Amino acid sequence: MNKVLPAAPFDRILRKCGAERVSEEAAQELRDIVEDIATNFAIEASKVARHAGRKTIKEEDIALVARTPNHF
Amino acid sequence: MNKVLPAAPFDRILRKCGAERVSEEAAQELRDIVEDIATNFAIEASKVARHAGRKTIKEEDIALVARTPNHF
Repeated sequence: MNKVLPAAPFDRILRKCGAERVSEEAAQELRDIVEDIATNFAIEASKVARHAGRKTIKEEDIALVARTPNHF
Repeated sequence: MNKVLPAAPFDRILRKCGAERVSEEAAQELRDIVEDIATNFAIEASKVARHAGRKTIKEEDIALVARTPNHF
């Protein structure tokens, strides 16, 4: 699956967290890992919204999934 | 801390994962959670790079942190 998140903000996050220099591959790797996590969250959020009889994913679906362990 | 990740790609991820409709707050909530996770990764990656005697964060630092449990 192609990535939809841009890599540049992850470079910025790494620098904000104490990195003096960041390799391009490091920012891309962080983006890839984080996008996989977001995708897993999205799949679970979609299931719990359907479970609640809704076609719209709401904030509460994301919050429920975020509080549920072992979804990574 | 202000968020650096844009919310729009998270709306796209949610739709790719089966959502018919996505509330604006849901995309923002997913962005917020995921950015917190990325920030925790970045803090740990910065530590392991320093531990290795480097000022540059490399892909291997991100990979090491991603394989280490309980960093969320």
